Amino acid sequence: MFRNSMPRYELLSEQALATLDGGWRRLVSEIGVEFGTERALNLFRAAGQKVEDHVVYFDPDFVMEQVAKAPREFDVQARNPAHSVHIGGDDMVFGSVYGAPFVREGDVRRDAKMEDFRNFCKLAQSFSAMDSAGGVIVEPEDMPLDSRHLDMVYALQTVTDKIYMGNVVSGENARDTLAMTEILFGGRESIERTPATISIINCNSPMRWDERMLDALFEYSAANQAVVLTPFLLMGAMSPVSVPATLVQQIAEALTGVALSQLIRPGSPVIFGSFLSNIDMQSGSPCFGTPESAVGLLCTGQIARHFGLPVRSGGGLTSSQMPDAQAAYEAVMTMVPTFLAGINWVMHAAGWLESGLVTSYEKYVLDVQVLEMLQKEFTPLEIDEASLAFGAHDEVRHGGHFLGAEHTMERFRTCFYRPWLSSSENYERWMRNGAKDAAARAQEIARKRIAEYEAPPLDDAIREELEAYVTRRRRELGD
Amino acid sequence: MFRNSMPRYELLSEQALATLDGGWRRLVSEIGVEFGTERALNLFRAAGQKVEDHVVYFDPDFVMEQVAKAPREFDVQARNPAHSVHIGGDDMVFGSVYGAPFVREGDVRRDAKMEDFRNFCKLAQSFSAMDSAGGVIVEPEDMPLDSRHLDMVYALQTVTDKIYMGNVVSGENARDTLAMTEILFGGRESIERTPATISIINCNSPMRWDERMLDALFEYSAANQAVVLTPFLLMGAMSPVSVPATLVQQIAEALTGVALSQLIRPGSPVIFGSFLSNIDMQSGSPCFGTPESAVGLLCTGQIARHFGLPVRSGGGLTSSQMPDAQAAYEAVMTMVPTFLAGINWVMHAAGWLESGLVTSYEKYVLDVQVLEMLQKEFTPLEIDEASLAFGAHDEVRHGGHFLGAEHTMERFRTCFYRPWLSSSENYERWMRNGAKDAAARAQEIARKRIAEYEAPPLDDAIREELEAYVTRRRRELGD
Repeated sequence: MFRNSMPRYELLSEQALATLDGGWRRLVSEIGVEFGTERALNLFRAAGQKVEDHVVYFDPDFVMEQVAKAPREFDVQARNPAHSVHIGGDDMVFGSVYGAPFVREGDVRRDAKMEDFRNFCKLAQSFSAMDSAGGVIVEPEDMPLDSRHLDMVYALQTVTDKIYMGNVVSGENARDTLAMTEILFGGRESIERTPATISIINCNSPMRWDERMLDALFEYSAANQAVVLTPFLLMGAMSPVSVPATLVQQIAEALTGVALSQLIRPGSPVIFGSFLSNIDMQSGSPCFGTPESAVGLLCTGQIARHFGLPVRSGGGLTSSQMPDAQAAYEAVMTMVPTFLAGINWVMHAAGWLESGLVTSYEKYVLDVQVLEMLQKEFTPLEIDEASLAFGAHDEVRHGGHFLGAEHTMERFRTCFYRPWLSSSENYERWMRNGAKDAAARAQEIARKRIAEYEAPPLDDAIREELEAYVTRRRRELGD
Repeated sequence: MFRNSMPRYELLSEQALATLDGGWRRLVSEIGVEFGTERALNLFRAAGQKVEDHVVYFDPDFVMEQVAKAPREFDVQARNPAHSVHIGGDDMVFGSVYGAPFVREGDVRRDAKMEDFRNFCKLAQSFSAMDSAGGVIVEPEDMPLDSRHLDMVYALQTVTDKIYMGNVVSGENARDTLAMTEILFGGRESIERTPATISIINCNSPMRWDERMLDALFEYSAANQAVVLTPFLLMGAMSPVSVPATLVQQIAEALTGVALSQLIRPGSPVIFGSFLSNIDMQSGSPCFGTPESAVGLLCTGQIARHFGLPVRSGGGLTSSQMPDAQAAYEAVMTMVPTFLAGINWVMHAAGWLESGLVTSYEKYVLDVQVLEMLQKEFTPLEIDEASLAFGAHDEVRHGGHFLGAEHTMERFRTCFYRPWLSSSENYERWMRNGAKDAAARAQEIARKRIAEYEAPPLDDAIREELEAYVTRRRRELGD
C-alpha cells in the first residue's frame, strides 16, 4: 500500500461541480436507472422510490441519504496481516489487470491457461509495489467454465497472501468466493468485521444494472464485503461524446449502485468506480491512455471526494498490441493522472495490453517499474537546512564534482530510486549485453521472478479445507 | 505555441520556499560563483560586488535587484509572423532536441550529417505542435567544425520559418548568428525591438560560468536576444545527491547568470534555465525520466514563478538506447511534469534518445504524438448545461448505445483527439497490416513527412544575402 501525501490535482471549480451535480440529479430522476432484478426493485419500491417496469426514478436526495451511510474509508484484510490494506484517504492500493482471455509473451499471443493465472499470482506476490494479484487476472480457458472461479479463488488465496477480488459472474460464484474466504479467514464473523475481498460490480452502461452482477452485489454487500460500483464508459458508445456528460452519467450510475448496496446492508463498504475512456470514432475501437480519459480520471477523483467515497480508476491502460513505446506512453498517460487524482483502488495496474484483451508478461514488469517510479515521485520532499548540503558545496566549490564528496559517500546507496528494468548503460556496453530492448529485458525479469517465487506459508488444515471445498463444489457443478 | 490554462501543480510550501531562499543566498555570498572572463568580473566589480580571483561573492539583494530588471514575459519573432511566440505566462513553446552527435534510424546508429540536420528541420516545420527546430538538432559531423554553425543557422532560417536558437560555441559564432538574423529580419533594429533568437547559456556546474559561453552571452544580451541561463545539473556529479540542495544550487547559478545579463543590458530577455536529473550512483551514467528529476522539474516551475522569470525545463528525456517502451515511459515521465509545471520554453521536446547522444527519427515522431496528446489533455474542459447532453440520454435511455445518437452524429469528427501514431486496430487487422510496433510506424511517418515537406517561401534577395554571408564567412574561417 502506498500513501500519496502529495497534493491532489483538481480541475473542477465549485461552479463546475454544481453543474455536474444538477446533471446527475436530473438524470436519475427524469431518465431513471434500470435494475435487472426484482430484489433490487423491491428494495427501492419499499424505500419510496418510483418504479416503472424495471426503471427506478430516483429522488436525488434519497440517493444522497444512502450514499451518506457508506464509510468514507475502510480496511481490507489479507491473510498476511502485513499485506492488509486501507481503502480511502491518501492511500493507494494496486491490483493486476482483470478479465483478459489471452496472454502474450514475446511474439506469442494465445489463449490463457491456469498456469498463466498462477504465474501472474506469483508475479503479484513477488513485487512489493503490487497489493493484490487482482481477480480474473486471465480467463483460464483450459479450465471448465462453470467451476473455474473455484480454481482462480484458490490460486489467489494460496499462491499469494495479499488481498484478492471476489468472483462476480453470478450470485452462486459470489457465494463460493465467500465460503472459501470464510475458510481462509476463520469464519463469517471475521470477514464481516473486516472485509477480506473487493469485488467489481460493473454497470451495463448506459443506466442499466444487470441481474447477474446485481446477484453478486447482493451476496457481497450482505456479507459486508467491499464492492466497486463501476460505470463502464467508453465515450461514444456507452456514453455521449462529451466528458462532462460522461461524468454526469458516471455519477448517476455509481451513486445509484451505491444506494442499492446501502439498502442491502447499511454501512457496507463501497468504492466509487470509474472505467472511462473513449472509442475511435472512425473504427469504433476502444482507445486507452487518451487525453479525454486522463481528464475524466482527474475529475473522477475530485468527484468521488466530493461525495465522500473512496474511488477506483486508472491503471496501466493501452490499446497497443505489444509492449512497445505506445503501450508505455499510453500506460503512463493513465498512471500519472491516477496518482495526481489520488485514486484509492487501482485495478489494471500491471499487465494490461491490447485494450484489456491480453495479459502480457512483459507489460506486467514494465508497469511495475513505472509504478515504483511513481511511488517514489509522489513521496514528498523533505526540505530543511540539512537537506541543502551546504557542507558539500563548501567541499567541492567551483567546477568540481560531487562524486567523492563526503555528503555523497554517506548517501550514495539510497539517495536515488534505482530502476531495475530501465537501462542507462552506455551504447558499447548495451551492445555487448545483447542490445535488448525494454520488452526483452522485462521478459527475462518475469521469468526469473516466477522461477524464484517462494510460496507464502499456509496452515495445512486450511489448505485441505479449501481443497475439499473446491473438490466438492466442482463435482456439484458437474465439472 | 500552446497556452496551458490548466492549474499549476505546485509542491513547495511557503516555508520550503523560504528555506530554499536562504540556501541560495548563503551559496552566492559564502561560496560565490566563478566567472571565466574578465569582462564579467569587471561588470560585477563595478557594480560593487566582492571579486577574488575569478570568484564573485554576491550580495543576494544585489542579485535580486538585477533579476527584477528582467522582463516577466516577452515575444520572440519568427520570419513567418504566424509562428512568432510568446515566452512566459501560461504559454508553452516547444523545440527539438539539441546537441546530439549521433542519429539513429531503425537499427542504424551513426554519425549525424548535414542532411540529417535538414531532415529534422523539415520534421519541425511539418508538425504544428513544434514551435522551433531548435538549435544544434544534431552535430553535422560531415561539415567543417569551424564553420558548421553557419550551415546550421542557414538551415534553421530557410528550411523552417519558425523561431530558432543561436549558436553559442563562441562569441564569434554568436556574432555570425546575429548577423544572419539581422539579414533575415531586416536589420539590427528589428531584432533589438523584438528578439528573434533564443540561445542556451549553460553553466559549468557547480558554480562556474565558462568563458566561451559567457562570450556568447555578452553578444546575445547586448543585442536584446533571449538567453536561457541554465545550470547543468546531474545530481551526484554536478550537484549534491539531494533535490533541495540541487534546487538551491540551480537558483544560485541561474540567478547570477541572469544578473550578468542585466548588467550587460538592463531589461534584456532571459529565461530561468533548468537541466536537472541524476546519475546512476553505481555506474555514473546519467539517467533521465527519473522520479527525482520529475520532482525537481515540478519545483523548478514554481521557483521560477517565485522570481518572476519565464522558465525552461523538461522535454522528452530518456536514457534508453532505442525508441522502445523505456524511451516512451521515461519521456512521458518528463513531459507530464513539464505541463504540470507550466514550463515556458521546452527544449528537447522531440527526438531525444540515449541520454542526448542520439537524435532519433522514430523518437521524434513518438514525442510529437505524446506532445499533441498532452496539449489536448491540458486544454480546460467547458462544463455547462449544454455539455451535459441530456438530450442524448433522453434519446438512448437504458442499455443502448450512443453511436448513432444525434448528439454523436453532430460531433463525431472532432469530439476526441485522434492520434496518428497510436494503433487501436483489432488484433487480426493489425496482424494483416504487418504487426508493426510504434517505432516501425514512427519511422514510416518520419519518412513520409520528410518526403512531403514543402519549403516555406523566402524572398530571393534575402536568401542570396544569407548565402553570400555564409560563403564569405566560411572562406574567412578557412573552411
